[in-house]
This record gives sequence, structure tokens and C-alpha cells, in this order.
Amino acid sequence: MSLEPVRIALDAMGGDFAPENPVAGAIQALKIYPELFVYLVGDELKILNELRKHEVRELRHRFEIKHTTQVIEMGDGAVEGIRRKKDSSILRAVELVRDGLAQAIVSAGHTGAALASAQIRLRTLPGVARSAIATVMPTETNLFVLIDSGANPEVDPENLVEFAIMGTIFSREVLQYKNPRVGLMSNGTEDGKGNSLVKESFKLLSQAPINFHGNVEGHDLFCNPVEVVVCDGFTGNVILKTAESISDAIFSWLKREIKKTPFRMFGAWLARGAFRAIRRKTNYEEYGGSLLLGVNGVCVIAHGASTPKAIKNAIRVARESIAHQVNPMIVEKIKAYHDSQSLVL
Amino acid sequence: MSLEPVRIALDAMGGDFAPENPVAGAIQALKIYPELFVYLVGDELKILNELRKHEVRELRHRFEIKHTTQVIEMGDGAVEGIRRKKDSSILRAVELVRDGLAQAIVSAGHTGAALASAQIRLRTLPGVARSAIATVMPTETNLFVLIDSGANPEVDPENLVEFAIMGTIFSREVLQYKNPRVGLMSNGTEDGKGNSLVKESFKLLSQAPINFHGNVEGHDLFCNPVEVVVCDGFTGNVILKTAESISDAIFSWLKREIKKTPFRMFGAWLARGAFRAIRRKTNYEEYGGSLLLGVNGVCVIAHGASTPKAIKNAIRVARESIAHQVNPMIVEKIKAYHDSQSLVL
Repeated sequence: MSLEPVRIALDAMGGDFAPENPVAGAIQALKIYPELFVYLVGDELKILNELRKHEVRELRHRFEIKHTTQVIEMGDGAVEGIRRKKDSSILRAVELVRDGLAQAIVSAGHTGAALASAQIRLRTLPGVARSAIATVMPTETNLFVLIDSGANPEVDPENLVEFAIMGTIFSREVLQYKNPRVGLMSNGTEDGKGNSLVKESFKLLSQAPINFHGNVEGHDLFCNPVEVVVCDGFTGNVILKTAESISDAIFSWLKREIKKTPFRMFGAWLARGAFRAIRRKTNYEEYGGSLLLGVNGVCVIAHGASTPKAIKNAIRVARESIAHQVNPMIVEKIKAYHDSQSLVL
Repeated sequence: MSLEPVRIALDAMGGDFAPENPVAGAIQALKIYPELFVYLVGDELKILNELRKHEVRELRHRFEIKHTTQVIEMGDGAVEGIRRKKDSSILRAVELVRDGLAQAIVSAGHTGAALASAQIRLRTLPGVARSAIATVMPTETNLFVLIDSGANPEVDPENLVEFAIMGTIFSREVLQYKNPRVGLMSNGTEDGKGNSLVKESFKLLSQAPINFHGNVEGHDLFCNPVEVVVCDGFTGNVILKTAESISDAIFSWLKREIKKTPFRMFGAWLARGAFRAIRRKTNYEEYGGSLLLGVNGVCVIAHGASTPKAIKNAIRVARESIAHQVNPMIVEKIKAYHDSQSLVL
């Protein structure tokens, strides 16, 4: 990986434990990645208070506080929030990218506000019609990218082709899968299954410059996974949240059942390595958050409850996307795709 | 429950273990429910062979074999299968209902063929535009009905209102929830979230004669569940299969992790009661299968891998739907809804 400086704008006020965890995560990242520079965007006094808890003397020339006075709260509407709060940390962080001072934003704050800020202030990359959220989902055997996992409740088939291309590049460059297979989310694996969006998209995806695997259905997602799953943002949101909901439900239910007798508790303690192995591999902290792909800048949306480690990993994902030139590659591949399409016509 | 005779047409050739498991399940059911009469529809010789394994002398006047010569196989297309195989067990079973000889079909065979047979031969109930699959999903605290879980990849808002009414009646009459709450599946709980279908349906559902809870999202499904979840069949299929996939994946992953050391295995053995408690409550065998609601007859679609117990429970669900007059109630409520709508216009 190159040692070109990588400049990140961190929304220091975003998340359930801000600015404590964002600041702590930034410091972890600065210690590991020598080429990193971080803008801590938010309330200066509060950030300084957090910085005091850490040993930062040697890092001092590698971060800078950008003071802002407002925070978009969970109760605020996304678009209305960024309209009313011009001096909010998320908007200011995005503006650092728009103005060329930073290459990436990382935020664990209001997801809708982060999305809207990036979409409005950064616009899409040349040739890209819609940006989409790419979320990394862990299975026992691989990691797959679910795109779009929530930005666009309604899309057209051309959008899905762009999502497939962007997801492929992310899977290859950041997750290091050589030739990621792309599955089209449907209600059955047979060709010809699906709603009208899926049926039309199937044809386009078959001709797109990707490793198209055909339709995938819910049964495949975790048991027989591909590397990229393409769908509209409504379906993607439902999948993402259902998956989180059911795995949370299973483990907390299991916990309550185990606590019912001392025997079970002792047994679970003996078997704790098995639980931990799964937990480690499915822990959101490791994946650092979702990427908004297709905007002109790198935008990482971390979990609201992000720990310092999760923030550090979100910064890592931003850094890798920059180092591996994910955005220039998206522009190139999508241009090549559209050029090939116009040749056909 | 009344002791009016209940007549079931069982697709004895349907399922991965047919006719063995369907026949065994029918006999279990006949022994428990004295008012039950079962048509065993399928290859007479094979069915007789299975019957020989059981003590059936006392039941002899309570079942009858309807000989058929064809079976729709998993590889057959649904509609094409029923077009080519006029003497298939599923089609003949459905025709027993159409002709008034039985009130319900139970099949663990080709789902698409069962759906298509019922939709084509039975038609919808008066006033009902589309039939929909209602699947019972277990959570730690309740059972919810997911409707439509796969029959209609594309629907309009009026269809969703009918699904909501049918799901409510099923939840109340068969699952015994007094005043089931209906959630509209969306990508966020706030009013105004959703794709265009959801947004339009929200208004109609708010005025429908149901206990409308508003939007639900994936996070709620298993952690904060309502009793009826309404969605199009594409989304429902994705939810159903994703939920099955992820819970299968978690438990088989856990199993493999546990098998890695004898300590873990011993621990899991000590804690086995906890695993079993969950397994018991989430075991598909208990719920007996999905109902195709809205057709003129009761149609229960059981799991392809149905055990005798699962078949017995599928027959139980059919029996309860008949005894509790689910279909007459659907006709009445949907008529009342449409009448109230035309008053508004």
C-alpha cells in the first residue's frame, strides 16, 4: 500500500458515544497508519477534553480540530437536519472532502443525514446515476457485499448494473476477492424468477462486465454465498435488518435459556470458545461500517454504537478505498460499460 | 371445537419422503381427531404398502385412497406440470375440494404446483382479488403471520389491504391472538418511509378494519414483533428465506465450532436443554406449513421435508381453519371492507 498521505474527515460528534469513541478510534488509527491525517470535526472544547485522555504528543502534527457548533440528532429529519444545521459536524466534514482538504468522511452519526450530506454536497461520480450503500455481511465462509442496502428504495435496472459494477470493485479492491461473483437478489434462483425489476435487470446484468452468477434467493445468502448481492435499497434494507434482527434474537434467546440453570451456564462456559469464534467473525466492529459508493469522495457510515475499534476499522476501510483507487476505478469501469452500451445501440 | 366431519384431501405423493411420511402423518392425525376423514390421493399400490406398516383396522372407514398415476416432480415447472399431468396427485387432491368432496388440501409436494393448482381450480373467494401465502414465523415471544410470503411477486395497495384482513383472521382464529397488530413491512418505522407501494398502502391500511400498527422494519421482526406482517410476495419470500438461511447458518456454524474440542462438546451437552428449548419453539414441524389464503377452499402447503409429525400438524392447521370458519369470515370481512370503501366514494 502506498504511503501517500491519506486525509480523513471524521465526524467527531457522530454516534451514540461521541465524541469519546470517535476521538479514541482516530487515535488508534493514527498510531497504526503512519500516512494518515485526521480532521476531528466537532465541538472543539469537547474534543480537546477527550484528547486529554490519550497520549497524543507525537501525533500532534497529524490531526487537526475543525470546530463546529451543531450536531444533527437522531430525532432530526435527515434532509431537514442538514438544511437547518449548516454548521453541523457531518456537513462540515463532508465539505472538507468537497473542498479537496480531505479524501474521505467517516461518521457514526445520523445515517440519513450522512447520506444526504454526501449526496447533496459531493454529487455522484462522473457517469454514475445513483449512489448506493454497500454493506459487508459476514458468513461462515466469506464476506459478501450487499448493495444497495438502503439508499434507494426505488431503482431501475440500469441502476442495478451500476451497483453491480461498484460492488464488484469494492469486493475486489478492499475485500480482496479476485473475481467476485455477483448475484441478483430474487425470490428464486431459476432464470425468469423475480418481480419486473429483477426480470429486466437480469438481462442487463448478463451482458455487463461482471462475473454474473444469476439470481440468488434468501436461502443462498448465508448458506451458499456469492461475493456481491445486488438489489434495490428497499429489499437490501429489509435483508440487512432482518439478518441483524434474527441473529440478535437467536443469541439473546440462547443466553436467556442458558441462564435458566447452573448446569447450562457451566456448559456454555466450557463451550465459550465456539460462541466467541462466531462472535469474532460476525462482529460489526471488524467491518468498520458501510460505504456510500458512487459519490465523488469516500464516505464511510459506521454503526451508531461504534466502539473506538469500530471507528478505527471504519477509518481503515476509508483508507483502503483511497489507496486502492476504488473511485477512479468506478469511473473508469462505468464509463467503459456505458461506452459499450452505446456501441450496441 | 365442533365435531362436524372434516374432510381433508392429502397429496400422498407430495414431499421428499412420500408416500411414507404423508401416510404416517395422516394416520397420526386420524388417531387424534375423531371427526377427521382423509382422502389419500396418489399411487394406490404404494399407499397400500405404506398402510401395511400401521395398525389401521379401526380407522378403515375414515380414509379412502384416490388412485392417481402421476406426480409433479421438483424439476417440473409449476404451470407446465399441472398442464401436462392431469392425473397428478396434487391436481386430483385439489379437484376433490373443488367438487365438494373435501374441504381442504394438504400437500408437501412441489409448492409452485400446489399454488397453481389451487389458484386455477379453486379460484379466489368472492370479493378477494388475489390469494396470498400466510406463513407462521416463531419468535421468542410470539408467532407472527407473514403474508404474502411468496405467491405474488407484484401487488397493488388494495391487495395488501386484503392480505392484512386475511392475515388478521388467520392470526385470530387459528393462532388465537385476540386483537392481532398488523405491521406494514418497510425500510424504516417512521410514517412516510418505504417505496411507492408501501407509501400508498400505508394510507389504505390506516383506514382498514384491522389493528394497524404502522410500518415495521427488519429490526422489529424478531425483536419487537407484531402478529401480522404484510408485504408483497417478493419481499415476503426474501424475508422468509433469509430468516431460514441465517438461523440454519448460525446453528450449523455453532455445531462445527463446538465439535472442534471435546471441552466444547461436553459443554454443549451440559447446555443442551437451552438449544432444545429454542429448537422446539422454532421447529417448522410444529407449525405444519403455510396456508394459501383467499382461495375457495383451505390449502395447506407443508415443508418438502415434512416428517409424519409435520404432516399431522399441517392437517391440524387445515382442520382448525375449517372449524373456525376462516374462509366464510374472510368473505364477510372483505365484503364489509369493500362496502365501506364504496360508501366513501
